[in-house]
Amino acid sequence: MTSATAAHPGRWVLTFVCRDQPGIVHAVSGAIVQARGNILESQQFSSDDTGRFFMRLELETDVPRADIVAVLEPVIGRFEMAWQLDEAGRPKRTLVLVSTAAHTLNDLLFRRRSGQLPVEIPLVLSNHGALRDLAEFYGTPFESLPVVDADSKAAFEQRVLDAVAEHDIELVVLARYMQILSPELCEKLRGRIINIHHSFLPGFKGANPYKQAHARGVKLIGATAHFVTSDLDEGPIIEQNVVRVDHSRTATELVSIGQDEESRTLRQAVTWFAQDRVLLDGARTIIFR
Amino acid sequence: MTSATAAHPGRWVLTFVCRDQPGIVHAVSGAIVQARGNILESQQFSSDDTGRFFMRLELETDVPRADIVAVLEPVIGRFEMAWQLDEAGRPKRTLVLVSTAAHTLNDLLFRRRSGQLPVEIPLVLSNHGALRDLAEFYGTPFESLPVVDADSKAAFEQRVLDAVAEHDIELVVLARYMQILSPELCEKLRGRIINIHHSFLPGFKGANPYKQAHARGVKLIGATAHFVTSDLDEGPIIEQNVVRVDHSRTATELVSIGQDEESRTLRQAVTWFAQDRVLLDGARTIIFR
Amino acid sequence: MTSATAAHPGRWVLTFVCRDQPGIVHAVSGAIVQARGNILESQQFSSDDTGRFFMRLELETDVPRADIVAVLEPVIGRFEMAWQLDEAGRPKRTLVLVSTAAHTLNDLLFRRRSGQLPVEIPLVLSNHGALRDLAEFYGTPFESLPVVDADSKAAFEQRVLDAVAEHDIELVVLARYMQILSPELCEKLRGRIINIHHSFLPGFKGANPYKQAHARGVKLIGATAHFVTSDLDEGPIIEQNVVRVDHSRTATELVSIGQDEESRTLRQAVTWFAQDRVLLDGARTIIFR
Amino acid sequence: MTSATAAHPGRWVLTFVCRDQPGIVHAVSGAIVQARGNILESQQFSSDDTGRFFMRLELETDVPRADIVAVLEPVIGRFEMAWQLDEAGRPKRTLVLVSTAAHTLNDLLFRRRSGQLPVEIPLVLSNHGALRDLAEFYGTPFESLPVVDADSKAAFEQRVLDAVAEHDIELVVLARYMQILSPELCEKLRGRIINIHHSFLPGFKGANPYKQAHARGVKLIGATAHFVTSDLDEGPIIEQNVVRVDHSRTATELVSIGQDEESRTLRQAVTWFAQDRVLLDGARTIIFR
Repeated sequence: MTSATAAHPGRWVLTFVCRDQPGIVHAVSGAIVQARGNILESQQFSSDDTGRFFMRLELETDVPRADIVAVLEPVIGRFEMAWQLDEAGRPKRTLVLVSTAAHTLNDLLFRRRSGQLPVEIPLVLSNHGALRDLAEFYGTPFESLPVVDADSKAAFEQRVLDAVAEHDIELVVLARYMQILSPELCEKLRGRIINIHHSFLPGFKGANPYKQAHARGVKLIGATAHFVTSDLDEGPIIEQNVVRVDHSRTATELVSIGQDEESRTLRQAVTWFAQDRVLLDGARTIIFR
Repeated sequence: MTSATAAHPGRWVLTFVCRDQPGIVHAVSGAIVQARGNILESQQFSSDDTGRFFMRLELETDVPRADIVAVLEPVIGRFEMAWQLDEAGRPKRTLVLVSTAAHTLNDLLFRRRSGQLPVEIPLVLSNHGALRDLAEFYGTPFESLPVVDADSKAAFEQRVLDAVAEHDIELVVLARYMQILSPELCEKLRGRIINIHHSFLPGFKGANPYKQAHARGVKLIGATAHFVTSDLDEGPIIEQNVVRVDHSRTATELVSIGQDEESRTLRQAVTWFAQDRVLLDGARTIIFR
Repeated sequence: MTSATAAHPGRWVLTFVCRDQPGIVHAVSGAIVQARGNILESQQFSSDDTGRFFMRLELETDVPRADIVAVLEPVIGRFEMAWQLDEAGRPKRTLVLVSTAAHTLNDLLFRRRSGQLPVEIPLVLSNHGALRDLAEFYGTPFESLPVVDADSKAAFEQRVLDAVAEHDIELVVLARYMQILSPELCEKLRGRIINIHHSFLPGFKGANPYKQAHARGVKLIGATAHFVTSDLDEGPIIEQNVVRVDHSRTATELVSIGQDEESRTLRQAVTWFAQDRVLLDGARTIIFR
Repeated sequence: MTSATAAHPGRWVLTFVCRDQPGIVHAVSGAIVQARGNILESQQFSSDDTGRFFMRLELETDVPRADIVAVLEPVIGRFEMAWQLDEAGRPKRTLVLVSTAAHTLNDLLFRRRSGQLPVEIPLVLSNHGALRDLAEFYGTPFESLPVVDADSKAAFEQRVLDAVAEHDIELVVLARYMQILSPELCEKLRGRIINIHHSFLPGFKGANPYKQAHARGVKLIGATAHFVTSDLDEGPIIEQNVVRVDHSRTATELVSIGQDEESRTLRQAVTWFAQDRVLLDGARTIIFR
């Protein structure tokens, strides 16, 4: 992290959740005034379903982080907030898991290099070697570990956990990683794994969604980025997109047509996560776009 | 039907289905040349799933219908075609079933009066009286028959069948008609009933799809027009549309937001059906747009 | 307006614009706390182009309007705000001008009756009589005054101004009203007239945009709702939508295809205006969706 | 080209244009029957604007190309057709011109390597060296020649013409090539140069369209793939897409947001061209999707 100086004020993202009640915005904005902060962006949501209040603020100030926290602490205590304060634009440390399909990885790496995706990727981990060249072209370390049985699967998942610890990983992205994660891994990384599913959920869960879509004769196919839970393809949805198809498309053509939606949907979800725009409200997500 | 004269050549729509094999297009186009016809529009599709060949042709000729049929008959026989030849633009006789929601009926009636929907509607039939005024404003006969138990439901369905016979109905439209039709009625009118379901099928079948969509936290809601079969919300899909929503929308707001998609999706399906652009290929539809 | 009581707290929309500077949010939220208010929705925007700060708040309180204003006044004065405080959901008094095309009027009236459009329409004014039946079916007063020359045009515009005064009109909607308003009228009602233009502006300004679109061979046609200024089709854009077309569509078919986009685009713009979600930032609009 | 054998029948694409008149389809399909061909796909269009008839057919036959041509020749002569018969799926030889923006080139090269873009790219030619690495990662020859004045521009354009001759180029793609081609070059390669313009034409022609779009406050930004003519940004449009933006986006953010639409729009246009699905009808294109 860079430290703010008077000459270069820092920009921060504050997000928090607490029970909905009067006075929250005033208390928080008061603390920000105390921290000589200016609010640049602000979004809030009161959930009727859970009675909770969600807020995301971007602020600019020339005081250091510790001073911001000091003035926030009484407010945090009073409202019993779950909160986070992060430097705006700081790239989130991201581990990407892949198998053999290249399109979503290519999109993530290309956009990251273009400076459009606020993540750093210390490692791409795969159960195949196929995407090594692509990762390395973008200067990203790549490891592959075959997953062929229960033992090798356990070893792969242990490698995931080790990599998470080693690189202080904040986000794990399943970029068309074609293995189901164990419930234990899902639980340990709860709220930190994003998957791209190649259908418009909740339609066509599980394997071969394009084949299912073809058989059902849908007129739009889609992609869904969601948090991974131990309940397959049932985790909270972050983003979805669809594209029109017609009767003349084979299941194989749907696979190709859907790639754009998969790539853009996953990239969008990762971007929002990295910008602290995704908050969890039970089984649903709040997206402060 | 108007009869074609040399001065006013008739325009016809020919659709047919047969086993896929070489020579079909040449044989059909030969018959059309014989009938002094000019092909104005032509679409075809070979189904890999079922091995069948589908074609839709619009043609112009100054010979009467009987003469067209006469030259087509040998071709029809040779290729064992299921076929249909109809005057282009002839409004299809349509029975509309409604309950209390007005938006899809309003859209159909408004578009029909504007000359944009090629149907005539000799009757709107409802299990409530709520939409009488709307139907009558558009000069459309309206009847209501309460459906409260098995007997009244049977009576309603008998009235549907009677109306179909009486008005020589070609299409029955369920414009947010909130009763499930009996398997017998579905069977009798197979391929002639179009329903609008207020979700993006196959997600959220059955009752209260917007409530289901809200609970699941989807980021797009949709509407699906499909043929009705005895398998609820599982009939062949004709058209689908979606619209973006976010976390801040209540289930009630989704109901309102979805109305546009329901109206346009149903209207599109009815239009295509009325233009003989919808053909059945097993559980899927061929749409010759 | 209804008055709030302790048992039935009032819901209010506060919008304001001022020079961007630190402390605004805190000062405003402090006043709201003083007024025993709870902030239900909040959006803000700092314009880099003009250096101005825009905010919209929805709040709930059991104190009357005068008390809210009293606590706000020092803040308003300190920051030199242009501001507005209105009861949330209060229907805006709207004058609709039409010619002969029915689709946007039909959509507005249908949605208003369904309770989905927060306006009241004391008068529909037209230069033709064609839409009288439609207006009257929805219980809306209708007047027509022919516009055939400079004198009758001046008389029509005077009738507009009289109606605005008489009904205390807050918004004038040109629902496919096919006359160009005089610069004087545009100026007098600046920021209060919304037009629907049947193209994706800035493409195809002026007359016959669908014909222009056909000639140019565009692959998407669109609609644009914008504020009217004396500079034809150049006023600030509020909302735009497009729909895909292909080479086979005639200019006449484009007219029909575009109706949906015109209706939904105009309705969306009117809804946002009526909910105080549209603010002006020079030649651009801020939309707090 | 591969030669068809009885065991491996060839698949061909026939496209032609002629004056619209009766009997064309029958004559062509008769020739195809003579060539032992089976029609797999067929599309046609009669242009009211120009009185011309356009057709594209995909057919399968086990006779060699010369035999197909032999049976077609009388038909071609009789109807005075401009025609083309190409092997289906044959990759078109494509020269890509770029400057420094990587996204459209990356998309084309990635899709080509995935087997989804039916082109071969013997050369990427640039006025900068910036994209050499990217081209070479995908195994594509890359040359750069600076363009700084009239002479170097002439030299660059001569290199284009030489490369076209040397590699028997069928299509030149301007993948965000930021120089205006001379009228002479446009004329020599008429109907064979596709450009991607980063706006929804005809809005925002010329330089800095995203800056123009921001200033005008449009609510959707877009991309347009079109044939290049000597009339800047006025050539026949092949494909267009748009994406929604709001007031909070800076002109710089629009540049980033628009990249997806540019990439997909250009790729779509190139794919259709390579599949012989794009025909010219005066200033408009016929797209047989």
